[in-house]
Amino acid sequence: MSKNCLVAQSGGPTAVINASISGILDANIKYKEFEKIYGAKNGIEGVMDGKLIDLSNLTKEEIDLLKLTPASALGSCRHKMKDFNEDEKEYEMILETLEKYNIDTFFYIGGNDSMDTVHKLSLYVKQKGIDKKIIGIPKTIDNDLMETDFTPGFGSAAKYIATTVLETYLDASVYKDNGVFIVETMGRDAGWLASSSVLAKIDGKPVVDFIYLPENPFDKEKFLADVKKCYEDKKQVYIVASEGLKDANGDYVFKSKTIEVHDKFAHAQLGGVGSYLKSIIEQANITHRIKVLELGTAQRAAMHCASLTDVNISHLCGFRAYEMRFEGKSGFMAGIKIKSMLPFETEIVEIDPSLVANKVKEIPREWMTDNFVKEELVEYLTPLIQGQPEIEYENGLPKYVKLI
Amino acid sequence: MSKNCLVAQSGGPTAVINASISGILDANIKYKEFEKIYGAKNGIEGVMDGKLIDLSNLTKEEIDLLKLTPASALGSCRHKMKDFNEDEKEYEMILETLEKYNIDTFFYIGGNDSMDTVHKLSLYVKQKGIDKKIIGIPKTIDNDLMETDFTPGFGSAAKYIATTVLETYLDASVYKDNGVFIVETMGRDAGWLASSSVLAKIDGKPVVDFIYLPENPFDKEKFLADVKKCYEDKKQVYIVASEGLKDANGDYVFKSKTIEVHDKFAHAQLGGVGSYLKSIIEQANITHRIKVLELGTAQRAAMHCASLTDVNISHLCGFRAYEMRFEGKSGFMAGIKIKSMLPFETEIVEIDPSLVANKVKEIPREWMTDNFVKEELVEYLTPLIQGQPEIEYENGLPKYVKLI
Repeated sequence: MSKNCLVAQSGGPTAVINASISGILDANIKYKEFEKIYGAKNGIEGVMDGKLIDLSNLTKEEIDLLKLTPASALGSCRHKMKDFNEDEKEYEMILETLEKYNIDTFFYIGGNDSMDTVHKLSLYVKQKGIDKKIIGIPKTIDNDLMETDFTPGFGSAAKYIATTVLETYLDASVYKDNGVFIVETMGRDAGWLASSSVLAKIDGKPVVDFIYLPENPFDKEKFLADVKKCYEDKKQVYIVASEGLKDANGDYVFKSKTIEVHDKFAHAQLGGVGSYLKSIIEQANITHRIKVLELGTAQRAAMHCASLTDVNISHLCGFRAYEMRFEGKSGFMAGIKIKSMLPFETEIVEIDPSLVANKVKEIPREWMTDNFVKEELVEYLTPLIQGQPEIEYENGLPKYVKLI
Repeated sequence: MSKNCLVAQSGGPTAVINASISGILDANIKYKEFEKIYGAKNGIEGVMDGKLIDLSNLTKEEIDLLKLTPASALGSCRHKMKDFNEDEKEYEMILETLEKYNIDTFFYIGGNDSMDTVHKLSLYVKQKGIDKKIIGIPKTIDNDLMETDFTPGFGSAAKYIATTVLETYLDASVYKDNGVFIVETMGRDAGWLASSSVLAKIDGKPVVDFIYLPENPFDKEKFLADVKKCYEDKKQVYIVASEGLKDANGDYVFKSKTIEVHDKFAHAQLGGVGSYLKSIIEQANITHRIKVLELGTAQRAAMHCASLTDVNISHLCGFRAYEMRFEGKSGFMAGIKIKSMLPFETEIVEIDPSLVANKVKEIPREWMTDNFVKEELVEYLTPLIQGQPEIEYENGLPKYVKLI
């Protein structure tokens, strides 16, 4: 009987999330351990519903195109698995699909919510004595997964943010009085994305004046004093703020009334921190020349501005996850360990998904000040944005592939 | 006595506006007609104030870096010249600077407001019998200048918009129910920028469902009916709208209360069309899954995603403007004529700046429908976004140069 594997993607997309699929496909070209490689549509929901597509017949050219195509090519979902001791139904549906398609190994690419699924599913098959391998592959632009030194997807988002900050800074510097420019990045609970704006430099000096992170309680009076002084000094203030900015009580400084309907984890959909900061600067009468740029989903989908380092690591996570299955491992997440900073070297290691599930890794307190970040953070970030992948262009635009 | 020239930049920046300066500098390396090439800081205001910097000593390497640096490297202004019959003072200040620095030729890079300056200044020196050449070089991402077949700056903005639309479309397609995604582009009076989103295709089919242009009166009921039907059909609607969307009375559908203070031409500062469209979709209860992406100034500064065709044309406008001066021409704008579409060939031609000043070129009515654009527009746009310039990267980010 044939031995097959299954891959699915979950949570918010990244620019390089498909590189992990191509890593699995490339590993199978090399090792040929699986007869067929299936992809489930829309994450674990597609596994439950038996909505699988066969990826085995993709040509090497298509696999390479997939590697450089942004956003979950298999579709995604946000699905919270119940505890199987409470309700076994979903687990049974999943097992039914795995049996039907002779799935030996299930690779699940996702963030901390998805690692919760990997953890629960691993426990379930173990308890039932079923020989199925469940393996997690990390992804998130937020870089907030525990245990892994960084996450695939983050480097590309960081590079896009730093590039956009550099370019919009030049654009925002052309008048005699340039006012205030505010960039709002994603980052609900951790400020890694906002902090990456520090990499944008002209003549070796960061172009950003202030960086505000969710890890740091936001002090409105200090903020206004900082902005006022900077504006008076040079008639220009460039601010980067994370959407998840919180006050001293831990409440979001600005919470949108809209709740994202498909977000079953009940995460509040944020947004509007930039507009909030603009409004308090206006109220304080510092200046009325204030522009806000919300980077939105462009920051997680911009393969045209991706980090080659990030693409390669995401691919490696898929490739090594496959290899590690045949080293006898299961029930783990393929995490990243930095072995050396200069030269930059990493290895893929086995991580217990329960240590990742539903947790958030913040920026270390000693890497930040109250309105900026420190050199340690610059050193950490720099290798992650290196290199540009060779995107294939067709008629002036990147050539991307759609699987479903 | 040495014969020198002066260059200045005006209005909103573009990604390729500095390529026109490098074109002038490269022409002088070839022809050596000018002893010195000066740049005025902050446009015509810097000319009046005598704030000049010497560009003659830039190395070829620096000139090439300048060519691929976005946003007015000499700074900009928005200054409306008075009629010299009413008030000669500013003209005298300009002449004083031109005399003091032995300026033979003044190149002014700008849009329709700047061509008003070129026109008035040309008339003034002619009337006074002063032998100074005044030459306009076009730039604007809006592509709305009369007489020129397109404008330097537009192709790169169009390429950035189409690329971002393609990538955010993929990102917005991953769930079973994807809701509505709205992109707001710049474009106060003409819809060229919004229309360029039509170039984003998957499998040869545009990914955008609806495109709304300022040239087309916005019909709220028809809009809601279109969106509702599309959402019911495929649980996904991708909309691109121009910031300058107007109703049947010619009023902006959403006008921000903020007026840009430094805009002395009294242009209303727009923004918020995306939010407006979101709010009416919400009110109509079509769906509450609606995301809005305002591209903001990133769309005019994104050299990392520029069109090589656009870079080269912008450079050529500067280079040919220089040459045309020595063909005995003055008081003109160096416009672009398309000589052939296949292969795409252009030439730089002499255009009367009074035909450009204070006017706006709209998209021809026959190139659009009420909620999309036609194939003629696709054919027009396609050559303008071709090719990728070879950006120099340093430490993972584009290397840009700052002159002032």
